[in-house]
Amino acid sequence: MSAKKSAEVLIGGKVYTLSGYEEEDYLQKVAAYINNKIAEFNSMDELRTYPADMKATLVELNIADDYFKAKALVEKYESDMEQKDKELYDLKHDLISDQVRVEALEEQVRNLENEKKDLLLAKAKLEASLEDALLGSLDVADDASNF
Amino acid sequence: MSAKKSAEVLIGGKVYTLSGYEEEDYLQKVAAYINNKIAEFNSMDELRTYPADMKATLVELNIADDYFKAKALVEKYESDMEQKDKELYDLKHDLISDQVRVEALEEQVRNLENEKKDLLLAKAKLEASLEDALLGSLDVADDASNF
Repeated sequence: MSAKKSAEVLIGGKVYTLSGYEEEDYLQKVAAYINNKIAEFNSMDELRTYPADMKATLVELNIADDYFKAKALVEKYESDMEQKDKELYDLKHDLISDQVRVEALEEQVRNLENEKKDLLLAKAKLEASLEDALLGSLDVADDASNF
Repeated sequence: MSAKKSAEVLIGGKVYTLSGYEEEDYLQKVAAYINNKIAEFNSMDELRTYPADMKATLVELNIADDYFKAKALVEKYESDMEQKDKELYDLKHDLISDQVRVEALEEQVRNLENEKKDLLLAKAKLEASLEDALLGSLDVADDASNF
């Protein structure tokens, strides 16, 4: 864990020395954000006469509202991501099944092509033998006719 | 858009009438959250002597810290989801290619099986013709020997 740091920030016109594990950049960003809220409320005429503690509470409410809105978004995204993860899981599963199917079909095609090659060869041999047999029977017939 | 509502909330021991578009449940939840922060700080001995405005600023800082932490998570989740969406897109694309490949292979298998059927038929016919031809030539030879 990183070491404790301390940083001076100006909030609502007062300097505060904050110490903690946060980087100074972060603390200055947070302070600037709060100062913007304060400035926002100070610029509202209807709040000009409000007591300081009431203004502080309005600032707290406003920041807390930003927090709850962000928190709601975090929760929405968490459920969206759960949904996406489920979809990813299902798609990967389908992809594997399809790849298995592709391999099985490729194997089937290879086997059928080999069988086809063998059958074409056997057919050619039979055609040749038939031709010889037909010629042979003609020869015998010719010989016979010479008697 | 829903109509403006107003609700009374108790924050830091004071009653505030808040009006806006938020539901009362939400406003009470936000008020309770702020009151917990205030109680947290009031329970710290080292802060007991702090002036009220300083305590209020510490509460603001603490709430703003919750906000920025939630905001950082929102940003992280947004980039995570972008990544997941890209992954989903790629997987869907791969799945479609595989399905096209499966269909092409199934077609190829069907064609090869038809060719195989035709070749087996042609082979059977040739075998029968060859048998006839061989028997035929023997008959001719027998006839010849009778001269």
